[in-house]
Amino acid sequence: MDEAQATRTHHHRHLEHARAQVIELLSRQAVERELVHRSEAVIGAARQDVVAQLVERQHHAALQQRLAHFHPADIAFVLEALEVDARALAWSLVRPERRGAVLLETTAAVRRALVQSMPVSEIADVVRPLDPEDIADLVQDLPEEDRRQVLAQLDQTDQAEVRSVLSFPPDSVGAAMDLDFVQVREDASLEAVLRLLRRRRELPAHTNELIVVDRGNRLRGFLPLAKLLLGDPDDQVAQAMSRDPVFFYTDDRMPEAANAFEKYDLVSAPVVNLHDQVVGRITVDAVVDDIRERAQTEGLRKVGLSEADEDLFAPLQQAARRRWPWLAINLATAFLASRVIDAFEGVIAAVVALAALMPIVASIGGNSGNQSVALVIRALALKAVSAAQWRRLLLRELGIALTNGALWGLALGAATWMLYRNAALAGVIAVALLLNLTVAAAVGVCAPVLLQRFGRDPVMGSSIILTATTDSMGFFIFLGLAGIFLA
Amino acid sequence: MDEAQATRTHHHRHLEHARAQVIELLSRQAVERELVHRSEAVIGAARQDVVAQLVERQHHAALQQRLAHFHPADIAFVLEALEVDARALAWSLVRPERRGAVLLETTAAVRRALVQSMPVSEIADVVRPLDPEDIADLVQDLPEEDRRQVLAQLDQTDQAEVRSVLSFPPDSVGAAMDLDFVQVREDASLEAVLRLLRRRRELPAHTNELIVVDRGNRLRGFLPLAKLLLGDPDDQVAQAMSRDPVFFYTDDRMPEAANAFEKYDLVSAPVVNLHDQVVGRITVDAVVDDIRERAQTEGLRKVGLSEADEDLFAPLQQAARRRWPWLAINLATAFLASRVIDAFEGVIAAVVALAALMPIVASIGGNSGNQSVALVIRALALKAVSAAQWRRLLLRELGIALTNGALWGLALGAATWMLYRNAALAGVIAVALLLNLTVAAAVGVCAPVLLQRFGRDPVMGSSIILTATTDSMGFFIFLGLAGIFLA
Repeated sequence: MDEAQATRTHHHRHLEHARAQVIELLSRQAVERELVHRSEAVIGAARQDVVAQLVERQHHAALQQRLAHFHPADIAFVLEALEVDARALAWSLVRPERRGAVLLETTAAVRRALVQSMPVSEIADVVRPLDPEDIADLVQDLPEEDRRQVLAQLDQTDQAEVRSVLSFPPDSVGAAMDLDFVQVREDASLEAVLRLLRRRRELPAHTNELIVVDRGNRLRGFLPLAKLLLGDPDDQVAQAMSRDPVFFYTDDRMPEAANAFEKYDLVSAPVVNLHDQVVGRITVDAVVDDIRERAQTEGLRKVGLSEADEDLFAPLQQAARRRWPWLAINLATAFLASRVIDAFEGVIAAVVALAALMPIVASIGGNSGNQSVALVIRALALKAVSAAQWRRLLLRELGIALTNGALWGLALGAATWMLYRNAALAGVIAVALLLNLTVAAAVGVCAPVLLQRFGRDPVMGSSIILTATTDSMGFFIFLGLAGIFLA
Repeated sequence: MDEAQATRTHHHRHLEHARAQVIELLSRQAVERELVHRSEAVIGAARQDVVAQLVERQHHAALQQRLAHFHPADIAFVLEALEVDARALAWSLVRPERRGAVLLETTAAVRRALVQSMPVSEIADVVRPLDPEDIADLVQDLPEEDRRQVLAQLDQTDQAEVRSVLSFPPDSVGAAMDLDFVQVREDASLEAVLRLLRRRRELPAHTNELIVVDRGNRLRGFLPLAKLLLGDPDDQVAQAMSRDPVFFYTDDRMPEAANAFEKYDLVSAPVVNLHDQVVGRITVDAVVDDIRERAQTEGLRKVGLSEADEDLFAPLQQAARRRWPWLAINLATAFLASRVIDAFEGVIAAVVALAALMPIVASIGGNSGNQSVALVIRALALKAVSAAQWRRLLLRELGIALTNGALWGLALGAATWMLYRNAALAGVIAVALLLNLTVAAAVGVCAPVLLQRFGRDPVMGSSIILTATTDSMGFFIFLGLAGIFLA
């Protein structure tokens, strides 16, 4: 049992504790260092407390040791949880040869901050031990000039491979593919394949199958390792292999690959160029990363934030400024709605109750429309609805809006009547709610579809368009009806 | 090239086309059948058009053939894209022995609809060929009584295994684990292991490593297939195996497993009980499904929809009724905000411009606060922030709110002054915006954290609480200040 106990160090509960401890220690160290610096500045820079320095060095050595036992992904977790000073300290305590692996595991925002803090020569040292596709991942955010300098310090083969990966669009399978894979010819015997593998001594990660190609390097099928293990060594690869591999072109988009991995339960799949020649493979870990990243940024994009905002400890001014475009757009649409109200000043002056009631109509419209938006965005992501069926979906959402609009319009009308004893006012708000829910359903279905068709981001744009419409139209319909029937 | 061409049938572009065609054909068939039924009802049920029946049967046979060539996941896609009548038709054309596999691939809502449409004996036939964990997945939504009847029709071993899977909570690793795995003893030779595998003839899907256990069935390590392929057959398993496996307990939660799979790039991992005995394994395909499902329902939950709403073709009345709770809550909070305005009727009657300006303050507060909510929910999902650091995150969001509130407050104040030439009004709206953004930041950070702490869903509850606060407080602050300085 004692050894089984020891293996538990990798288990998340213990791990969480260990990470939390290190984060705590690093934060405290950074604060202490800051205090020492400040007191030095006050007392005079000349005074060097040798004892304090020794203690600090000892602490750092202990922390360095602990970090050395962490998986790169856990070091990345620690870095993300630290504030700027403590993060710099932690980064200096990570062994140089592990820094590349750690960078690969951090979120895009933290990675960018760390890479930009390093001189070019250090970046080259850090990325050198990595695979070409990972190097490409790390250097792609660098300014053109820095990237060229980093690449120049790598050896020729690496340079060429990194350049080839960088030539694919960021969202494509080509940019995410793994260049390290084992391919065999279909006319080889399983025995010969086994000998080939033994000579390699090690297989690339996530190799659950070998890729089978013909003389022209074109994809023919795949040979699962299990078949190789269990098959007759004298058999030919062609006899043992599976013939209809799921494969991707370098220019296929990652979400499509993710759909295929989910559906066909893949671990890896070959990637081919336009001549059907195998140029790499895509593995499930790249797909998992892609799905998670996409899911996480979707929640942020919906409210106008970008992945840069993932870094919770970026400087305050930067973070504040990144929110300006969103605030500006919202201020503009709110101002528009305000002008609609302003046009009905006379009606409001005559019946002040309208001012209290009008936000209800606008608000319910926005909330109800956002339900349609969420359904449509999900359908768009899954491509579950054909072009012809969009019309039916629209009719369905309109049907729901009319049903619920009539029902809740009556409820709101009744409440209004009880508060104000004004039958005309009650009727006006009931009809306004019904109409605004209908507008919300129409815009909620059409906005995402149209945004996507014109190549814009439906996740971010739809709710802006929706709320702008439901606010303005909500006020317009309600106050307009009031102007006709009440004034 | 021609064979490589043939393999492309699995490729998504061709596949999309094939699926779209079948969906089109099925929809048309269902409509035609409906028309025939209707005309029969009009002309008289006795008249049976033999020719029409023959044509229909021919069409169905052709469709059945095409569906037979589809992967279960693609049939599931077709079912989800079809309206109720066409879906029933398509389901009847799926071969009975494939129905279980297809059900596993559909979304929860469609699966539930299909399962509920089948008699108990048919459900038993459909699930019989499946693995116990998959059977558990399908029968768990059935009413208690039906579930018992279905299980009673399975053989004894299956019954016991399904019951054991059903005993784990739905969100746990135990409920998602795979009971089919290969375990070997550490004192066996690689040669002996190879012999054992050859006797099995086939390995379970996603077997990239064998699980190594001791005499008491306790987890000791894992043996990658690659090691088995490349190692010396005379070596002992103990020499070739890796000793610190990432493993899970049956009661670990799936999101934790997903984090570990993402971080350590796993394909499969052993699952142990409280005595560290191996009882199953969790594979990357289950993790991918879990991540996707969670990401997709998050977008829906945010606007008060559930996974039941995934079925875009469920009856309209049902769909409308499912939205009532959300509408009711929103109506209640909007009403609350309306009462706040009502309290300031006198001020608005004196300065009607207030009515036009007040929604701006409320709306910007809501949008800005939702940015804080999105950041916090993401941090909660990743557990990236320790308890002590929440305070710092709160201070940071407050800092951003004060910065941007001051800046955009000035902008809005300036715009107001230009429109109304009223310095007091401009000052009031500037200060109100600043204060409401601060309230929004505080609520935006605290609401999700507190909801999570009290075991509620932060994704769904946070934005309701936030908007209720920013609306009411926005009106209260703005009209309150106006009452003091303008009236």
